[in-house]
Amino acid sequence: MCGVFGVFNNKSAAELTFLGLHALQHRGQESAGIAVSDGYDINIRLGSGLVTQAIKEEDIKELKGDIAIGHVRYSTSGGSNPKNIQPFFAHFYGGQFAIAHNGNLVNAERLKRELEMEGAIFRSTSDTEVFVHLIAKSRQPAPPHINLHKNDEDFLPHVFEAMKKVKGAYSLVILREKQLIAVRDPHGFRPLVLGKNRSGSYFVASETCALDIVDAEYLRDINPGEVIVIDDAGIRSYYPFEHTENPKKCIFEFVYFARPDSKIFKDWVYSVRKEFGRRLAKEYPIDADCVIPVLDSGLLAALGYSEESGIPFEIGLIRNHYVGRSFIQPSQEIRDLSVRLKLNPVRDVIEGKRIIVIDDSIVRGTTSRKIVNMLRRAGAKEVHMLISSPPVVSPCYYGIDTPTKEELLASSMSIEEIRKFIGADTLGYLSLEGMLEAADKTKGYCTACFTGHYPVLDELFEEIQIP
Amino acid sequence: MCGVFGVFNNKSAAELTFLGLHALQHRGQESAGIAVSDGYDINIRLGSGLVTQAIKEEDIKELKGDIAIGHVRYSTSGGSNPKNIQPFFAHFYGGQFAIAHNGNLVNAERLKRELEMEGAIFRSTSDTEVFVHLIAKSRQPAPPHINLHKNDEDFLPHVFEAMKKVKGAYSLVILREKQLIAVRDPHGFRPLVLGKNRSGSYFVASETCALDIVDAEYLRDINPGEVIVIDDAGIRSYYPFEHTENPKKCIFEFVYFARPDSKIFKDWVYSVRKEFGRRLAKEYPIDADCVIPVLDSGLLAALGYSEESGIPFEIGLIRNHYVGRSFIQPSQEIRDLSVRLKLNPVRDVIEGKRIIVIDDSIVRGTTSRKIVNMLRRAGAKEVHMLISSPPVVSPCYYGIDTPTKEELLASSMSIEEIRKFIGADTLGYLSLEGMLEAADKTKGYCTACFTGHYPVLDELFEEIQIP
Amino acid sequence: MCGVFGVFNNKSAAELTFLGLHALQHRGQESAGIAVSDGYDINIRLGSGLVTQAIKEEDIKELKGDIAIGHVRYSTSGGSNPKNIQPFFAHFYGGQFAIAHNGNLVNAERLKRELEMEGAIFRSTSDTEVFVHLIAKSRQPAPPHINLHKNDEDFLPHVFEAMKKVKGAYSLVILREKQLIAVRDPHGFRPLVLGKNRSGSYFVASETCALDIVDAEYLRDINPGEVIVIDDAGIRSYYPFEHTENPKKCIFEFVYFARPDSKIFKDWVYSVRKEFGRRLAKEYPIDADCVIPVLDSGLLAALGYSEESGIPFEIGLIRNHYVGRSFIQPSQEIRDLSVRLKLNPVRDVIEGKRIIVIDDSIVRGTTSRKIVNMLRRAGAKEVHMLISSPPVVSPCYYGIDTPTKEELLASSMSIEEIRKFIGADTLGYLSLEGMLEAADKTKGYCTACFTGHYPVLDELFEEIQIP
Amino acid sequence: MCGVFGVFNNKSAAELTFLGLHALQHRGQESAGIAVSDGYDINIRLGSGLVTQAIKEEDIKELKGDIAIGHVRYSTSGGSNPKNIQPFFAHFYGGQFAIAHNGNLVNAERLKRELEMEGAIFRSTSDTEVFVHLIAKSRQPAPPHINLHKNDEDFLPHVFEAMKKVKGAYSLVILREKQLIAVRDPHGFRPLVLGKNRSGSYFVASETCALDIVDAEYLRDINPGEVIVIDDAGIRSYYPFEHTENPKKCIFEFVYFARPDSKIFKDWVYSVRKEFGRRLAKEYPIDADCVIPVLDSGLLAALGYSEESGIPFEIGLIRNHYVGRSFIQPSQEIRDLSVRLKLNPVRDVIEGKRIIVIDDSIVRGTTSRKIVNMLRRAGAKEVHMLISSPPVVSPCYYGIDTPTKEELLASSMSIEEIRKFIGADTLGYLSLEGMLEAADKTKGYCTACFTGHYPVLDELFEEIQIP
Repeated sequence: MCGVFGVFNNKSAAELTFLGLHALQHRGQESAGIAVSDGYDINIRLGSGLVTQAIKEEDIKELKGDIAIGHVRYSTSGGSNPKNIQPFFAHFYGGQFAIAHNGNLVNAERLKRELEMEGAIFRSTSDTEVFVHLIAKSRQPAPPHINLHKNDEDFLPHVFEAMKKVKGAYSLVILREKQLIAVRDPHGFRPLVLGKNRSGSYFVASETCALDIVDAEYLRDINPGEVIVIDDAGIRSYYPFEHTENPKKCIFEFVYFARPDSKIFKDWVYSVRKEFGRRLAKEYPIDADCVIPVLDSGLLAALGYSEESGIPFEIGLIRNHYVGRSFIQPSQEIRDLSVRLKLNPVRDVIEGKRIIVIDDSIVRGTTSRKIVNMLRRAGAKEVHMLISSPPVVSPCYYGIDTPTKEELLASSMSIEEIRKFIGADTLGYLSLEGMLEAADKTKGYCTACFTGHYPVLDELFEEIQIP
Repeated sequence: MCGVFGVFNNKSAAELTFLGLHALQHRGQESAGIAVSDGYDINIRLGSGLVTQAIKEEDIKELKGDIAIGHVRYSTSGGSNPKNIQPFFAHFYGGQFAIAHNGNLVNAERLKRELEMEGAIFRSTSDTEVFVHLIAKSRQPAPPHINLHKNDEDFLPHVFEAMKKVKGAYSLVILREKQLIAVRDPHGFRPLVLGKNRSGSYFVASETCALDIVDAEYLRDINPGEVIVIDDAGIRSYYPFEHTENPKKCIFEFVYFARPDSKIFKDWVYSVRKEFGRRLAKEYPIDADCVIPVLDSGLLAALGYSEESGIPFEIGLIRNHYVGRSFIQPSQEIRDLSVRLKLNPVRDVIEGKRIIVIDDSIVRGTTSRKIVNMLRRAGAKEVHMLISSPPVVSPCYYGIDTPTKEELLASSMSIEEIRKFIGADTLGYLSLEGMLEAADKTKGYCTACFTGHYPVLDELFEEIQIP
Repeated sequence: MCGVFGVFNNKSAAELTFLGLHALQHRGQESAGIAVSDGYDINIRLGSGLVTQAIKEEDIKELKGDIAIGHVRYSTSGGSNPKNIQPFFAHFYGGQFAIAHNGNLVNAERLKRELEMEGAIFRSTSDTEVFVHLIAKSRQPAPPHINLHKNDEDFLPHVFEAMKKVKGAYSLVILREKQLIAVRDPHGFRPLVLGKNRSGSYFVASETCALDIVDAEYLRDINPGEVIVIDDAGIRSYYPFEHTENPKKCIFEFVYFARPDSKIFKDWVYSVRKEFGRRLAKEYPIDADCVIPVLDSGLLAALGYSEESGIPFEIGLIRNHYVGRSFIQPSQEIRDLSVRLKLNPVRDVIEGKRIIVIDDSIVRGTTSRKIVNMLRRAGAKEVHMLISSPPVVSPCYYGIDTPTKEELLASSMSIEEIRKFIGADTLGYLSLEGMLEAADKTKGYCTACFTGHYPVLDELFEEIQIP
Repeated sequence: MCGVFGVFNNKSAAELTFLGLHALQHRGQESAGIAVSDGYDINIRLGSGLVTQAIKEEDIKELKGDIAIGHVRYSTSGGSNPKNIQPFFAHFYGGQFAIAHNGNLVNAERLKRELEMEGAIFRSTSDTEVFVHLIAKSRQPAPPHINLHKNDEDFLPHVFEAMKKVKGAYSLVILREKQLIAVRDPHGFRPLVLGKNRSGSYFVASETCALDIVDAEYLRDINPGEVIVIDDAGIRSYYPFEHTENPKKCIFEFVYFARPDSKIFKDWVYSVRKEFGRRLAKEYPIDADCVIPVLDSGLLAALGYSEESGIPFEIGLIRNHYVGRSFIQPSQEIRDLSVRLKLNPVRDVIEGKRIIVIDDSIVRGTTSRKIVNMLRRAGAKEVHMLISSPPVVSPCYYGIDTPTKEELLASSMSIEEIRKFIGADTLGYLSLEGMLEAADKTKGYCTACFTGHYPVLDELFEEIQIP
């Protein structure tokens, strides 16, 4: 998971990118970076942590120019390795560019080996650098069905050739001296939207919430397989693939990642997430006194469950807004401290009650176990835990940082075993069918993490590197 | 507003105080401090900002001892003046002590002048230092109705005399070399609770949420006019005043300040706050499509309104959890940026709808105005704003940092004028009677900010200093 | 050891105080503070560490006003206790003032007990607060031989009474709303100088190097027992003591503390320090190849020795200017790392040579031992260590942070034993007589640390607290 | 200017590299980095500022492994661009490596264009990345005269081919998974030394002072054109060039850059620098009262001048050791503040005297002018400025960040004009012949900055990029 943002034609390009990344902060908190072009040179600033920690006021002042891209990076493995902070800058014979990537390539290792055999050097351990090399290496002309604008003749054929070589998930923003380019993979795994403000600046972002913060209007999604170029000559759209792929949009964006005020894949996250809760109410009618969310992940499903079932919705667990990075190590006598720093039960709501508690997913199960325990210690008579998605049984190879198969509770335990592990009276997961119906299954979703059936990967099976 | 915390008999006293202050962070973000006694000496660390900024890991390591007190301070006027960061340390002929104070004295200036005439020096501009001097100066024996434990003979008479001299609001924790003392003023303006954990450590805190984070059980409130002493000889209670005062508990604690998972004044904030919403629904029945809260201040009142009225509850404004201190100045083309960094409308919920939006209070009106405008731009057909308390017409002299009378919108505008100013279709405030009934009016509340009738102050009127 | 600075009548008062403290940084690195008056109110900023760490740019901006004082504090015991950072602020019935102090009172504990019996509270553990209380308590009129200017009638009698009650070393700057006051104790233990710049601003500082940095001219010393008041009515001098005391100027200021470019006690430190070296050459004629200083403490004495003896002066140990606070713990295989981070031998100068190495003093002996060892490992044939002052046998009670008697090497070891301990071929200390002659003994010096004979203290012996 | 450091076979490899960089801090203060191999993977940490700012304690803890390299970077143009912080990491088909470089390539732009035409991408604007690409691209076998150890067969031929393609100055350390490699260009422009400690760890460093700090012995210089490989099989030396080049050692290392306690180019900097002073005394016999250095750059030349001439050496300008980064802007009334924060005249030494002041070079002339002015205002009767090197008339293309030709005072002014500009009574520069004789001219030096005659460059003239 990562977030990308781009702006074209705005004197405050770096500042607006800073704001856009701020709105996308939920998609990655490990590091952040901004690259800006003043029409001649690309300047870049990178840092660790939240956007406000990574990019300082003086950085913004030094990043002069009208076109910018930015990136927030999710913590994967190995801590904050400075080699991997994006955007990546590159200078090749066609000039300078910078690139920021949300997604994951499934044939990256194979391509990397091939590129290295031809003399390429890699300065990061990130998939994204494969893209950079493929662009720089490319010598193929554009596909015959494409009519290129003259501004696009030098660089776009490189992008097209790179897109044909890589397999997997990629929503990209590319910054050139005088252009902003947005690219989405042919399956459309990750979201990418286009916006415009009243003064004529264009914006590209992972989610619409980043358009809102810069006061821009949503125009449309970048389509699967589409490349959009924005420069002084206007905005142009290309489809380098002649055949359409089946869309494989990541349904986990609706389950967890995207912000509820965003529209992605042409649907509002808010409505889909509430509908998950309604479906859950139909699949698991339970006689209880109230339904409470695990904040904020279970909020809308709990609201939907309450509306469908008529069981009152309450805020039974309060979230502490000042969490921050605390250095305090949990001393032995304070059980469950790490959860307690974030959530505290409202005894008034819980004591003596039969509680339905709703979360969006269970990964390792330890947090759920602490929450059930916390509710029982606050006096709950019954604790029924419902999950607004099916059990996660397989890791994601398309850009989400899931644990390995071994760490995924549901890959080795039955639902009944998980229920016992977390200590709940009931444990229910939304069915795959229920989830897909809620999200309108006709639209084409990737459900690999729930089913183990991997689009793209099944064809390329031999070259997968299992993380 | 401030928060206080104390712990007795725990090897991790400084660490637990850090956690307790963390849970009380909503009561003050300007500065924080911790004082610890190792039985012989009192050591202290103070700093600006949030608890995690003010107190560092190495501070905690250096603060060795089994008894501790802590304080979080609310931003009043004049920025972060280092003179005023609490706890205050004092050495007098009776030994060392440290003190932390939530509240405000109404006769502080007069006492200060008297003390200065006798040679006292003040090293802060805080009321609390008056208390410190009164304790040190005191020569009176304890009142005749009090039987002092021998451990209390040297110091408590000083505290009693000080309590009789000051007028106003004070919930105090005092740290001595071998004692923890908790004090609450006879009107009980501010909350103060007592707790205990399984291993026998005692805790004192402004709210019960700070007991929860250290895994302690709530025992009871410190009563108005009560002094509690905890040392190796046990826990003792004294009531230095022979006559009981009418309780004047701050109802604004229920309206806004206290955390919803806290029990204060023997009631759960959660229930009282929801009841404000129910009363609002009875007083203002409105034909609308949904009711939404201004997060987090209007959350529970909106839930209560929805339950009473049957109008669906929705999260129409999303709160950004990563706000932090942003240096970005709102550029001209981004209107309402300061609000937008915190809240974003969910267009899916708002567009084409008749919205009831609920907040807890309106102070200067500028935020409410931005919210109404933001909802209209997101497509709301009607915007009805309801407030879960009466109009604030007068400043508080008991410890809440309200604007001056001139800045309070409701002190100079009619409700209809405010409605026009903020641009809502309807504006309704909960009636005083409705608010008091929701909180159980038999219990005795201070409502000065809504009525201008000041307890204590009316007797002392000539010596008030209007801030 | 500490440094004080004051400025009157300058729009950049806080900024110039910052610079002055910067020049006095060698007198104290533990903490720093600045207090400024705008004519009505005194504002203050305090912090830990070097001046540039303790006082930030935004602090300077907020410290508006034309009169200021500042203080740098030396690390004594107990680390950076925030209670003790100066200047101290006080509000008493006569108004506000702030005070900064270089020195140490010998009857502080007795006065503190008396003040506490009368109800005073102490918020620090510093002697300086005794002064603050004595000023606030004072009720005596000025001595009859004093004719007070009308501006001085309200406050100066307090200062005079305080001066008569305290015994010991004090060079003070006091800031009032509209006045700057400078005070020096009747023995004149610590230096204090007066300066003026071309635009008519007055300055007071511990040493003349702080006048240089603000481009002010040295006018004269504040005399022992003198009080100087500067305000809009001009500059006035008072001598509250009728009888003159023998001057007891701290000779260690010449040995070590003061900066060589300063003039203190009306003499240039540079010349006196070089003369120590010349005397050393007369007392210890040694046949050697070169004379090298331990930088920077032995620099001028080594130059003087070289000039007198004709033995070449060389820089045999290079000082690393980037030391800073390093977190690296010396691993076992790197011997003498803590010294090596600061000093490195120049093998070219040392190898095969007979070396005279000169330092200003030996306290615990561990550093000298490491230096001798380092020189031998770099190939020195002989290492003769000479010290430009007599053995330190007794602690200082007048403001210098010396070790306790037990820790002072020379209090329990003979010179021959010390020589063996540090491993030198020769060890020689400058004689007391030689040192006094170099500094012009007719001027009156305190030599307690070399002799154990304490001025003032011998009369007050019963009330000394041995640290 | 930069500094490089490497260590092989030490459990504290990262810590020792940190120390080594600390000792080399004078060679670059803009940024620092450390790369460590644990035998399988290379881990890296980079940062801006001094070593202690760039690399944090937790970085050192995370950098586990027995082999490490490090780099300190000098501020060139464009501020602290994160793209250019070294060491650079690279992954190519032969595995991982990291590289750190001191020097400057003169044909970098041409090679860069060629590499880009073959598809290479550049992620920095640094010459060093050219080396990285040449290594990765290389397909040539080792030269026939070389017998490679089997451990060196895969990688070293790449290094040899790269060395043959680049022209210019390079002292390199390369880190592979299991090897440390040191490389020096055939002209030997920049120093590079080899050391070993008692426990058998090997070290490579720009100067011997970095060996001292880690308690290692100097073994010998890496020779011009030599490649040294250190791994578990031992230490091996290769000379890939069949023909020897004339050595062109940078004489400015002796004039200014290297630390005086270092041995470089097989000579002690200390002695050479003092000899510059002696030669200066012969070339410019002046009748004066004392000779003083501009600290620290003129220290040893002033000592040498004093010894040769018999004129007393004094410390007439005191250096402030606490300079740090001060935010204070010089207010108008404080003239020459930027110099005054660093240097202060000792009036005692200066007043009424005829002064010879010695510095190592004059670049823009503004600092010299301020110093002359400062000395005159402190009362100097005459000020004679002598410079221990010839006038700098041409920029350096081999790794020193000199101003452009236009900014170099001596490129456009005669010595008499410069004398008038700085306001001295005399201005004398050491002659080229004098300088070369002092450094032993038979050894072969690059004197391009003094003469405009560029080794290597004259052959490659058409492809120079003038900075």
